[in-house]
Amino acid sequence: MSLGIKNRQDQKRVIVIGAKGHIGQAAMTDLGEHEVIMASRRGGGGDARHLRVDITDVDSVSTLFQDVIEHHGPFDAVISAVGHCEYADFESMTNDQWATTIASKLVGQMNVVREGLKYIREGGSFTLISGILNVKPMPKGIADATTSGAIDTFVKCVAHELPRGIRINAVNPTVIESAWEDYRDMMPGYQPVADKLVGKAFRRCVDSFITGQVIFVDA
Amino acid sequence: MSLGIKNRQDQKRVIVIGAKGHIGQAAMTDLGEHEVIMASRRGGGGDARHLRVDITDVDSVSTLFQDVIEHHGPFDAVISAVGHCEYADFESMTNDQWATTIASKLVGQMNVVREGLKYIREGGSFTLISGILNVKPMPKGIADATTSGAIDTFVKCVAHELPRGIRINAVNPTVIESAWEDYRDMMPGYQPVADKLVGKAFRRCVDSFITGQVIFVDA
Repeated sequence: MSLGIKNRQDQKRVIVIGAKGHIGQAAMTDLGEHEVIMASRRGGGGDARHLRVDITDVDSVSTLFQDVIEHHGPFDAVISAVGHCEYADFESMTNDQWATTIASKLVGQMNVVREGLKYIREGGSFTLISGILNVKPMPKGIADATTSGAIDTFVKCVAHELPRGIRINAVNPTVIESAWEDYRDMMPGYQPVADKLVGKAFRRCVDSFITGQVIFVDA
Repeated sequence: MSLGIKNRQDQKRVIVIGAKGHIGQAAMTDLGEHEVIMASRRGGGGDARHLRVDITDVDSVSTLFQDVIEHHGPFDAVISAVGHCEYADFESMTNDQWATTIASKLVGQMNVVREGLKYIREGGSFTLISGILNVKPMPKGIADATTSGAIDTFVKCVAHELPRGIRINAVNPTVIESAWEDYRDMMPGYQPVADKLVGKAFRRCVDSFITGQVIFVDA
């Protein structure tokens, strides 16, 4: 039985930036009914559905959106599943480590929204990634936590001023199962969540009407 | 009558960075019993109690603390009442405006803590400034809001790892009365608060035992 209510429009064209990473892969677990264009730092080596982008470079971000429109057509949603963070104790974290983290996780993701706004369809959506450390801090996680707090705040505040019915949200997950081997030694007492739950969160941001929200995915 | 309970140690040496600004002046309204060393971008023109500092320059910040110790002695508390923000609609805010705001309000204040940690006395405290726009967003305030959210998060998370009993908090005020003339046109529907209430918040951070907290001063 079904209620016969379909809570989405027709198929959307969704750009997933950081498609090769754990979170990017998780984000794609529930996008099956949409047309997905992948983007990553290395690109897909000639695959027309997997483009190259460096989010710390505004021109590269702009080129990505132009290329998608030229080769595939207008797009409805952008998922950012990227943002490099450096991990160190606060007292030993260097200027460069702070600068790298801020340029990628914070400014890089804002670049995606700033440039994407010029190209995205009316009623489109942006979904950014933050991470649980801003509400569950851990040793060596201060740069991740600080930039995650900035992204969560950015999304909540900027949503009010996006034009043309465009929405923006953030997914704030704890560590996911597929990445647990890499993080388990750093994160005693944290419970990984299934990748598909993170996929559900991204999917809800793409297909629902919510905006200015931070979707926590935690156990 | 008095309870005879004195909730503070003896006189402390407190460095107030941004002492010439509205918030810096407000911060000093309730520090009377302490010895205050002022610092600002222009300095006090030879006044030994008013030094020069540029928080966006790590060396300048380090020099400030060394100079205080050399000329005045060890210090117990640092109040940061600085952080330049650019104001513009999100769609028109430039790379430079974002970079300037992040370098000052976010990285600049973190520089104060990073460098100050090397010099501050055991049991000392840092108090940073954020601002109400991260919880009460307004048009043109996105860079202020985003960096305030980052500062609030930073303070809450980094408090866990400061050594030697050192504390850190943030004061998050709405606009204050002495600055209302400058901001009133930009902030319809906001109620300014008395400068001395902001002074009380800074004083409490200096003299209480709280750490990892954001003290909102709002009406």
